[in-house]
Amino acid sequence: MGRPWATFGVDLHLEPSGAGGLRRGLTDALRDAVRGGRLAPGTRLPSSRTLAADLGIARNTVAEAYGDLVAEGWLTARQGSGTRVAERAVVPPSDTAPRPRAPGRPTHNLVPGTPDLASFPRTEWLRAARRALTAAPSDALGYGDPRGRPELRTALAGYLSRARGVRAAPDGILVCGGFSHGLRILGTVLRARGAHTVAVESYGLFVHWDLLAAAGLTTRPLPYDARATDTRALPDAAAVLLTPAHQFPMGTPLRADRRAAVVDWARRTGGLVLEDDYDGEFRYDRQPVGALQGLDPDHVVYLGTASKSLAPGLRLAWMVLPPSLMEECVAVKGLADTCGVLDQLTLAEFIGSGAYDRHVRSARLRYRRRRDALVAAIAARAPEVRVTGIAAGLHAVLRLPPGTEPSVVQAAAWQGLALHGLAFYRHAQATTEPLDALVVGYGTPSDHAWAGALEALCRVLP
Amino acid sequence: MGRPWATFGVDLHLEPSGAGGLRRGLTDALRDAVRGGRLAPGTRLPSSRTLAADLGIARNTVAEAYGDLVAEGWLTARQGSGTRVAERAVVPPSDTAPRPRAPGRPTHNLVPGTPDLASFPRTEWLRAARRALTAAPSDALGYGDPRGRPELRTALAGYLSRARGVRAAPDGILVCGGFSHGLRILGTVLRARGAHTVAVESYGLFVHWDLLAAAGLTTRPLPYDARATDTRALPDAAAVLLTPAHQFPMGTPLRADRRAAVVDWARRTGGLVLEDDYDGEFRYDRQPVGALQGLDPDHVVYLGTASKSLAPGLRLAWMVLPPSLMEECVAVKGLADTCGVLDQLTLAEFIGSGAYDRHVRSARLRYRRRRDALVAAIAARAPEVRVTGIAAGLHAVLRLPPGTEPSVVQAAAWQGLALHGLAFYRHAQATTEPLDALVVGYGTPSDHAWAGALEALCRVLP
Repeated sequence: MGRPWATFGVDLHLEPSGAGGLRRGLTDALRDAVRGGRLAPGTRLPSSRTLAADLGIARNTVAEAYGDLVAEGWLTARQGSGTRVAERAVVPPSDTAPRPRAPGRPTHNLVPGTPDLASFPRTEWLRAARRALTAAPSDALGYGDPRGRPELRTALAGYLSRARGVRAAPDGILVCGGFSHGLRILGTVLRARGAHTVAVESYGLFVHWDLLAAAGLTTRPLPYDARATDTRALPDAAAVLLTPAHQFPMGTPLRADRRAAVVDWARRTGGLVLEDDYDGEFRYDRQPVGALQGLDPDHVVYLGTASKSLAPGLRLAWMVLPPSLMEECVAVKGLADTCGVLDQLTLAEFIGSGAYDRHVRSARLRYRRRRDALVAAIAARAPEVRVTGIAAGLHAVLRLPPGTEPSVVQAAAWQGLALHGLAFYRHAQATTEPLDALVVGYGTPSDHAWAGALEALCRVLP
Repeated sequence: MGRPWATFGVDLHLEPSGAGGLRRGLTDALRDAVRGGRLAPGTRLPSSRTLAADLGIARNTVAEAYGDLVAEGWLTARQGSGTRVAERAVVPPSDTAPRPRAPGRPTHNLVPGTPDLASFPRTEWLRAARRALTAAPSDALGYGDPRGRPELRTALAGYLSRARGVRAAPDGILVCGGFSHGLRILGTVLRARGAHTVAVESYGLFVHWDLLAAAGLTTRPLPYDARATDTRALPDAAAVLLTPAHQFPMGTPLRADRRAAVVDWARRTGGLVLEDDYDGEFRYDRQPVGALQGLDPDHVVYLGTASKSLAPGLRLAWMVLPPSLMEECVAVKGLADTCGVLDQLTLAEFIGSGAYDRHVRSARLRYRRRRDALVAAIAARAPEVRVTGIAAGLHAVLRLPPGTEPSVVQAAAWQGLALHGLAFYRHAQATTEPLDALVVGYGTPSDHAWAGALEALCRVLP
């Protein structure tokens, strides 16, 4: 058919010009489209007036074709919701992959790494989104700067400077799609520079070690003693990945002398410190210790994220890079890996308006109360168990009597309580004496689910 | 200081406990924070009441410290906007990278690849965002399925089926951050499978060829004759990257016999067809030709994008994958490369509510009018120039008299008109006889700027 489709509300992809008249042709075409699955169940069809105008045929013809198909059961028509494709099973193409079975969901979830998603500030976020998108120049919606939107980099530079003691200028910040994305970029750059080894902590996340391995780098764990990661023992590595403010998962801060040792190492060897500041805003007993990056912006990459303070689903994180690294990181990131600008603009507005500070303050109060409740419950009901680590973050480490970790983790699984033992976070090459402990993500449940999760936890503790 | 920080609106990162009294200590700490750049110009300070409550000191002490610093010029206080850090130049850290100079912006822009960003449907998008975020379960804000949100994959399956004739089930769709991201994933998977060569078109985008090269693949161009890309000459390649609906940039559709030839080749050799359907919604003279993927979903990967229909800044695209490819693509994409869920949920709502269809219809009308104006202006003012390609998409190819392309492109640059000649899009190994032509992105300017851009174009044509 040689008609313009410009006025067509919904593209039906029809060719209603067969024999048997227009009504018959249109009816057949629509039926085929529904039967073949090309028109999905629930799809709303254009009004008969619109479709008629578009096809250049009488409105009655369309209305009659719709009527026929409603009578046949292919379409449904209801007052107020228009004409829709009936909700019936469409035969899927024979080559469709089998749907992967969702794993059974546990009743309670204390796996760390995700904040309380129910407390995401939806209303304030939408308000910021409206202000940001209304104010944005049209150009902002284009391909844009691979470092990220300047509005966000400017807001982050101010925020990180005052809240985390980071020395950051907007031009030194690279916005990325989550911490893992940033780490992948850094791993690729390090490998391209000829690096082979990255020192890591004895306890951490294997997904991070795997990302470095995928970039062609070997990870080698530093010893962890009673006090913290031992940075005096830094091997011949091109870089070291650390969580200085709040070791993940052990929950200890890097002590002042060991902070100094790692910076000395970096200056002496030209090595790079990758500072994972995943939950630096959440300290309950005192003012947070400033970022390591403030000590030496030329040798430390600061990595921050919205995944703990807001939500992982935003996929927004940021790196403050030494000037010498920016060009190579941008080249690796390239256009194929940029992040959506709308969330970037919204986060910039969210920070600039003070909403981010207000949200962090409120979240800090929430998580602090949960940690207090956890400590009190353990003291009262499981005196053999000791809560270790500083009053900070969204998780705590529960030291267990020697040899009991596997059975407690197993008991938790039976009770429908998702939970990891410390062994889950241990590097395969770690030489540190293994400890029996649980890593409890008290930030993960919603307020509603928290009490039940805590109760379930107490029930499985020795 | 050992005080809780949970009630602190803005974290100042101060230690106001020095000698000389509280007022002096607070004044010094704030001054240092401003001087050192840790408190950025324009930052709003907490009210004296809030800060006093938080520090556990008298409100007057804070008010006096603020007053001192206003007097010294570090802060400003204005009725209604509170106390802020004064707008003064902060000395940047000495190690800041020099700001890259922005290239001079041309007056007119007819480089294809970007739609009219001024027509992005901001109000409707925000409305969809509100509905989507309000309706989303909290879990949606977590790390989520690496294939993308199920809401979006379901909406896309329905839309692609009815509008582009794609055979898609939600489980067969992988959401990615733009076409380039999808192509990078596919290139990595092909290389891991042992592929060495991907056939491409003689004319196309070098960024795509570069992405394949970065994955370790050689690109080899297919001949382009008067009719279209010649798929009968497919070399010994693992895959072929094509723009069947509307060759970019030549503007021709892949003819029926050559569509058949490429599918035959794929079936015979087990090769993979990568179908780049970048502007398939925009056809003005007839109903769009359905996607090649509908002919053989087992051998064709369909790639679509929101970059032309909405805006590149969304960084949202989608691949409909043969079942055999999904697992490998998900493994390559991984958690390090997921896209923000809020835009995914919003696009799902935008499609499901019919707003996407309405927007595409309105955009189609806009671009069609521009194309008509272009054709009319060329006929009237540059009879030596011929507009080629079908009435579709957001760009047209203007054939020039032999030998004139370089001088016309040069003249355009002098006139402040950003424009590419056809040579810009030619593969280095292309054997096709070179043609003199301009590739005119009539979709790029805003409505406001379009007439001026067209006039500037006419002035530089022979």
